Amino acid sequence: MTSSTDQIVRADGRATDQLRPVKITRGWLDEAEGSVLVEFGRTRVLCVASFTEGVPRWRKGSGEGWVTAEYAMLPRATNERSQRESVKGKIGGRTHEISRLIGRSLRAVVDMSALGENSIVLDCDVLQADGGTRTAAITGAYVALADAIAWGRRHGHIKGGKQVLADSVAAVSVGIIDGTPMLDLPYVEDVRAETDMNVVVTGGGKFIEVQGTAEHAPFDRAELDALLDLAVGGTAELTKIQQEALAQEL
Amino acid sequence: MTSSTDQIVRADGRATDQLRPVKITRGWLDEAEGSVLVEFGRTRVLCVASFTEGVPRWRKGSGEGWVTAEYAMLPRATNERSQRESVKGKIGGRTHEISRLIGRSLRAVVDMSALGENSIVLDCDVLQADGGTRTAAITGAYVALADAIAWGRRHGHIKGGKQVLADSVAAVSVGIIDGTPMLDLPYVEDVRAETDMNVVVTGGGKFIEVQGTAEHAPFDRAELDALLDLAVGGTAELTKIQQEALAQEL
Amino acid sequence: MTSSTDQIVRADGRATDQLRPVKITRGWLDEAEGSVLVEFGRTRVLCVASFTEGVPRWRKGSGEGWVTAEYAMLPRATNERSQRESVKGKIGGRTHEISRLIGRSLRAVVDMSALGENSIVLDCDVLQADGGTRTAAITGAYVALADAIAWGRRHGHIKGGKQVLADSVAAVSVGIIDGTPMLDLPYVEDVRAETDMNVVVTGGGKFIEVQGTAEHAPFDRAELDALLDLAVGGTAELTKIQQEALAQEL
Amino acid sequence: MTSSTDQIVRADGRATDQLRPVKITRGWLDEAEGSVLVEFGRTRVLCVASFTEGVPRWRKGSGEGWVTAEYAMLPRATNERSQRESVKGKIGGRTHEISRLIGRSLRAVVDMSALGENSIVLDCDVLQADGGTRTAAITGAYVALADAIAWGRRHGHIKGGKQVLADSVAAVSVGIIDGTPMLDLPYVEDVRAETDMNVVVTGGGKFIEVQGTAEHAPFDRAELDALLDLAVGGTAELTKIQQEALAQEL
Amino acid sequence: MTSSTDQIVRADGRATDQLRPVKITRGWLDEAEGSVLVEFGRTRVLCVASFTEGVPRWRKGSGEGWVTAEYAMLPRATNERSQRESVKGKIGGRTHEISRLIGRSLRAVVDMSALGENSIVLDCDVLQADGGTRTAAITGAYVALADAIAWGRRHGHIKGGKQVLADSVAAVSVGIIDGTPMLDLPYVEDVRAETDMNVVVTGGGKFIEVQGTAEHAPFDRAELDALLDLAVGGTAELTKIQQEALAQEL
Amino acid sequence: MTSSTDQIVRADGRATDQLRPVKITRGWLDEAEGSVLVEFGRTRVLCVASFTEGVPRWRKGSGEGWVTAEYAMLPRATNERSQRESVKGKIGGRTHEISRLIGRSLRAVVDMSALGENSIVLDCDVLQADGGTRTAAITGAYVALADAIAWGRRHGHIKGGKQVLADSVAAVSVGIIDGTPMLDLPYVEDVRAETDMNVVVTGGGKFIEVQGTAEHAPFDRAELDALLDLAVGGTAELTKIQQEALAQEL
Repeated sequence: MTSSTDQIVRADGRATDQLRPVKITRGWLDEAEGSVLVEFGRTRVLCVASFTEGVPRWRKGSGEGWVTAEYAMLPRATNERSQRESVKGKIGGRTHEISRLIGRSLRAVVDMSALGENSIVLDCDVLQADGGTRTAAITGAYVALADAIAWGRRHGHIKGGKQVLADSVAAVSVGIIDGTPMLDLPYVEDVRAETDMNVVVTGGGKFIEVQGTAEHAPFDRAELDALLDLAVGGTAELTKIQQEALAQEL
Repeated sequence: MTSSTDQIVRADGRATDQLRPVKITRGWLDEAEGSVLVEFGRTRVLCVASFTEGVPRWRKGSGEGWVTAEYAMLPRATNERSQRESVKGKIGGRTHEISRLIGRSLRAVVDMSALGENSIVLDCDVLQADGGTRTAAITGAYVALADAIAWGRRHGHIKGGKQVLADSVAAVSVGIIDGTPMLDLPYVEDVRAETDMNVVVTGGGKFIEVQGTAEHAPFDRAELDALLDLAVGGTAELTKIQQEALAQEL
Repeated sequence: MTSSTDQIVRADGRATDQLRPVKITRGWLDEAEGSVLVEFGRTRVLCVASFTEGVPRWRKGSGEGWVTAEYAMLPRATNERSQRESVKGKIGGRTHEISRLIGRSLRAVVDMSALGENSIVLDCDVLQADGGTRTAAITGAYVALADAIAWGRRHGHIKGGKQVLADSVAAVSVGIIDGTPMLDLPYVEDVRAETDMNVVVTGGGKFIEVQGTAEHAPFDRAELDALLDLAVGGTAELTKIQQEALAQEL
Repeated sequence: MTSSTDQIVRADGRATDQLRPVKITRGWLDEAEGSVLVEFGRTRVLCVASFTEGVPRWRKGSGEGWVTAEYAMLPRATNERSQRESVKGKIGGRTHEISRLIGRSLRAVVDMSALGENSIVLDCDVLQADGGTRTAAITGAYVALADAIAWGRRHGHIKGGKQVLADSVAAVSVGIIDGTPMLDLPYVEDVRAETDMNVVVTGGGKFIEVQGTAEHAPFDRAELDALLDLAVGGTAELTKIQQEALAQEL
Repeated sequence: MTSSTDQIVRADGRATDQLRPVKITRGWLDEAEGSVLVEFGRTRVLCVASFTEGVPRWRKGSGEGWVTAEYAMLPRATNERSQRESVKGKIGGRTHEISRLIGRSLRAVVDMSALGENSIVLDCDVLQADGGTRTAAITGAYVALADAIAWGRRHGHIKGGKQVLADSVAAVSVGIIDGTPMLDLPYVEDVRAETDMNVVVTGGGKFIEVQGTAEHAPFDRAELDALLDLAVGGTAELTKIQQEALAQEL
Repeated sequence: MTSSTDQIVRADGRATDQLRPVKITRGWLDEAEGSVLVEFGRTRVLCVASFTEGVPRWRKGSGEGWVTAEYAMLPRATNERSQRESVKGKIGGRTHEISRLIGRSLRAVVDMSALGENSIVLDCDVLQADGGTRTAAITGAYVALADAIAWGRRHGHIKGGKQVLADSVAAVSVGIIDGTPMLDLPYVEDVRAETDMNVVVTGGGKFIEVQGTAEHAPFDRAELDALLDLAVGGTAELTKIQQEALAQEL
């Protein structure tokens, strides 16, 4: 692990602990209860929250709501066109894995009994992919979720004074490239990373998910610690950007 | 059929022979060979053209290229969220039908031997649906196709001086509502139409596809003629908008 | 467009505005409520109408019935054996498209409230294909539908004195071959057609569906008109053949 | 087991050891290399043999041919309409089982090296089902197979003087109803049978398949013997009917 | 058929009428209501019986229970790894066929009204395959079924004093190899067999299923008789082994 | 977080940092190149390594091998029977996720160029599930992989003197229950855990995967550290058990 990471300059000119330009556009669609276009550099994900009254059968009568997510990529989001999963007739392992991750991450900050027997589905569709699509999706989906919950309260579907969202949630990727820990990897860095980690953190700075993978070389405790430090710093910044976006008039 | 259609005012204030505001944004993605966001009012379709050298196996050695299209809707493009076809594990009849229509419409203006053994796939993904998604898709896909062909020529994949595009192509929906033929139906008009027709027309004013359906009442020859007149007028305007879009520097 | 079409002789000796020999055999199966073997030359389609009490869930309590259709080909209906869609595990786009067309065409002449909460499924299975299978299917399915409705009335499932069938429906293909508009294309003509149109017409001469496709060359308004004239003439004849078939004792 | 089975009269008036009226119509389609409509009473199966040069990849270079079969039912072949397997997206266990049985039965009489590297697919589609569809299918498929082999020889695809068919093959169902062994069960008898057996026999009287199932009561050796006797008698008759059909000019 | 079969020595040293070493281990899992590891030589099948209250919808209110079975192979049960059916996305014909056979065989000895409205699913998963997997599965599944029924009675789900199991059931494969009938074929014999038969027999010596197939040469009545004799002898021995296994304390 | 975790006694009597009894049985099948039954308490996973010469098409000519894994559960591995994924016709998200995790974990210690163009598939089938099935699978699969590599070398498929395995790999689950970090969770603890982490560690003590999930409450850095300490201790012990198993004569 290189110690003086602050002198290293990345291909796009960023410092090792610097996020790409992040942009969150709320109300991107006309009808959806929450809809956000989130951009981490060139990565662009449309996060749409659909609010419906009622819950899946297995949860009926529980008094609790349900939040779930589906992640997908448009066929030409990537540099080479990939076949549609609808055409293949099945959803791939990677898609499943990310959908589940997004769902878990959002549910971790939702008070299901405060939500009541309502359901919110988050559709995260990657329009353009340049690394970090799952972390952008989580970060954007949180804002869409907040908008959908506000909509549910405005329309009387969420009752009672209880806070539905216990905290906010944001996510970022970190990785070790040529021995140097770096924040928020675009595609060119991602494929070269020895170790790759996605970290989901609450607004309060606690961890929801830590998923570290040794792509090319096992990593030690010191490297793990450095990556976690970078991630905690990056998500704190993302939390601020989310708050600013939500502070604006829709 | 009501004769004095010019006095009728539609819910959105348009004349019966007036298009919704149409907007074509080229280069909407960073990497794709052609990418267009087309808007017919609230209907928004992302049309992406992917150019690859080579053709499907059944066409190898023919000296001819291939153009095909896939149409899909994001789950919350519509007012109520619909299940993803990838999750269902199969593509529905409507999706198949529209994908085939777009592909046929574009192939009708492509000189396959001028294209040479190259393939272009048009992905038309509906981001927001408010009626006329298939006609918007064709209209936008033509522009993305033109950009991808220009790209192919610039990069030396298309050889020879022959024109690849014999003509341009645009499409519009028309229908009879309460006895009045109308141009470019948004969703609220579409569901009320007695007869519904999608017409695909070349820049030169010839027909590529005429698909008329009596949704609620069979139609006679006079009504058919009135609808075709409206469609020919509407597509002439769309042709101009396409030309203007293509005239700009990308 | 060649003007003196009457002197042109087709491969099978027909005039350009002449149907192939058409044969409708009712009661082809022993148990089905309506079953018709329809032949347009060598094209042979078995159209079976299954009548059941009750309607799909989404229509319950509406007081209205439902009519739907499924089209399929036996694997060796065509000259080269094709793989079964059951073996492929999915239904192709063409099959979907034709099934939907048949269903729409029949529903256009059915008074759903007169039918009451009963369902009729039309299975159109192509036993031998020589062009025009979808138009033969519609033409035969109408007769099977009429028999199934009569059965439903005889057995007391259809109540009240209201007419269920508002009109009859027949369909024919037309196309332009070497510049000449022709009626009812067999396979050898179909593959050569510049333009190909399927027209569904009521007994009263009104249009239910007009689906014209430029297979090789866009068509102008005069060609469109000539094709429609041919189709209207052809379907009038088919209507007579349907009436004669239905006039016989079953 | 009742001993005096000769006095028992069945619902359709047959003796216990009597076949239903059997009819074999060759050349039922215009193009297929072999096509037979076989009828066992009301049971009607279309058996079509498709001859193609070449064999599946795993058999290439072996000098041997391949014969396989696919069985299916039209949705309204049965008294109640059943869902298409293409719509379900998968083939059921019963369909698989019968397709495999037909294939094995036919392969048992084919000399694959005499056939040479050619393939024959037998499509057995049940148009109307009244019990015994699999045995009718085998019996008819043999005749279609013989016609396809003759076609292959006539067209020079089968070379050398060696006999391709070592023997003929026919099949019949037998069962015990109210203690009485009976031949060739229609649907009403089939559902009541305590034991049900399908027997496939060569023209020379040897067994290819014996599939006996105790539907309601286990059977003993004497019952098994009585059923086999009936089956051997029935298939001998079917062999004659096949020979007569094949003796006629096509 | 060779007459003096007693002098023939098989590759594994067995006499022609001798079973492989058979081992039945009850209670192989900790939680299942019945779980048996059955071994026929190297063939190892885990048979697990799952007891649940209630029956499938179509059987509700009948007062009768339901027993069904599913057979599968682990991918490396065979000598060459085969692809998982879950990965292929569909179940093959052979799997379907064997699952159905096991289910039928067990249902033949169950008194469904004595079982009451309870369901038992038998999962037979082949851990290692060396011929005879379906017959081992039936033989082992019977023991697991007996344990699950005892469990159901112990826990008060099966009421009344009526016997649920009318008899026991066991199965064995037999075949003719080089003209000699042999009992219980391992894989090396199975692939060489001219004729191959699976026989399912009750404890009382009656037949439930007889499935004989001429793999390479049709067989005559004398051969069929010799095979049945071997099978009846083999299943009588298996019945004893089942009884001994069930006599032990679990 | 409770500090004095050493006094806490778990339901099964273990200390908080104690593994369940772990048992590794090599050579559990007769034919597979590597086959291991691994038991973590009641959790039992059969890990089978299949060695084949050659690599998937996309890797041909690279000189490098390939290692992949498939994870599955028998239907009654869990306390309630679950439907087979082969019957559902698709593989669930959890299965996909775990298969990918096992594959990645093993590939991290394999020198693909030393393996040469050979493939090894690891099939991990859970026979009984009581928590920790994925970590048991990784731990057992490593031993099966080592055996398969030894087999490949013995049979001359792996050439050259280079070490194929750079290190060993083992995995364990850890979690926080009622505020106390605990090692190797059985099912009853797993469902109660606030945070749940799966950690994959090399024999040399470096991390390959760290997957931590806040099931009920976000976790802080101190908790994360405590969990990692437990995991590193547990996997060190598992490494020893693997070494002992591999030291024995097969």
